Amino acid sequence: MPDIISTVDVILLTLKDGGLQVVLLEREHEPYAGVLALPGGYIHPGEDADAEAAAERVLRDKTGIVSPYLEQLATFSGRGRDPRGWSLSVCYYALVPHGVIGNAGRTQVSLYPVDAVRGLPFDHARIIAAAVERVKNKSSYSSLPVYLCGETFTLPQLQAVYETLLGEPINKVSFRRKIEAFDILEPVRGALATGGAHRPAQLYRLKPRYHKQLSLTDRGLNAG
Amino acid sequence: MPDIISTVDVILLTLKDGGLQVVLLEREHEPYAGVLALPGGYIHPGEDADAEAAAERVLRDKTGIVSPYLEQLATFSGRGRDPRGWSLSVCYYALVPHGVIGNAGRTQVSLYPVDAVRGLPFDHARIIAAAVERVKNKSSYSSLPVYLCGETFTLPQLQAVYETLLGEPINKVSFRRKIEAFDILEPVRGALATGGAHRPAQLYRLKPRYHKQLSLTDRGLNAG
Repeated sequence: MPDIISTVDVILLTLKDGGLQVVLLEREHEPYAGVLALPGGYIHPGEDADAEAAAERVLRDKTGIVSPYLEQLATFSGRGRDPRGWSLSVCYYALVPHGVIGNAGRTQVSLYPVDAVRGLPFDHARIIAAAVERVKNKSSYSSLPVYLCGETFTLPQLQAVYETLLGEPINKVSFRRKIEAFDILEPVRGALATGGAHRPAQLYRLKPRYHKQLSLTDRGLNAG
Repeated sequence: MPDIISTVDVILLTLKDGGLQVVLLEREHEPYAGVLALPGGYIHPGEDADAEAAAERVLRDKTGIVSPYLEQLATFSGRGRDPRGWSLSVCYYALVPHGVIGNAGRTQVSLYPVDAVRGLPFDHARIIAAAVERVKNKSSYSSLPVYLCGETFTLPQLQAVYETLLGEPINKVSFRRKIEAFDILEPVRGALATGGAHRPAQLYRLKPRYHKQLSLTDRGLNAG
């Protein structure tokens, strides 16, 4: 049997201060002990049904976060990425509301803007860049950004999340038509968001059956 | 070190008889010796720089095909997919012109319509289905289908390839505008395709620098 180090890494992204931020943890063990890196660990064949289960376990054990929607990004592999030898990491990403990270109860969880992370070990900078690119691409034609919102949110709040990810303003009428076509949201009965100079807005939440599923459009959200 | 079987599998797709077909080979060794399956094999850490290099090696050794554009599909993993134990397979797909497969010079190479493959071992049916879905999705907004064409082709031939993959007719004017925007093709000087009842059409080929690269549009090819 070839000697391959088989691991998983999780890119946990959230919106904070107007941009995407990524969860990093101080590594407990060598190599790179004490250095900030993506939450990751070995696959445990005796314990994990598959690589996704391994990623869920690692995320739960290291951050306390049980993620609602984990998606495989890609596998990064090769001779040069880990000083211990030939390694591969099946990488998963997840989008979570900022509040979930605040509640994780593990003080070592750090958040860094995705475009300001420096000095990461292994190929973690490359992995994060690939995850950010995937999220931005996928946001243009899917309901993925909904997972960045809290339990309940208004449509203007959701639109602002999309606009942050896409990096451009979205036409409101077109946006609402696409969101309606996704058919993934339901109004929270009798709940209105109040505050600021705006009139109260209806609060929405994800329909329960979409908690682990995306809805796609065959045209860009901004394509009119 | 956990005992994990680390392999690669390649989903090699081509167009034949008006539909996508997949390359299958008779397995040489147990488990499932003699059964048709995707070309695949162990990662060799001493030999392969990374998983993609392993996939290229396996494809070359088992089919004689040196693929122009290999893309990672996903990693399939877990306890149940291989009778030998916990396994993972980093899967790569490639699109090739039909003629390349005919020229491979290995008689055991078989082509099967992707929607007619039956009785495959492991989770290969699921892997093929995922590859077909990826190719169809990606065809709607990228230059990917160009790799199914031969060395040279006319624009009507390329449009027919797109229409086969997308499963619907495409507006000719809109199609040509998108292809022009990709800026990946160059006319073959002085070369016209003749034949049939049609007037001679200009032959095109992929610009050399795009032999391993996709061009993307942010809107669907059929989005006007």
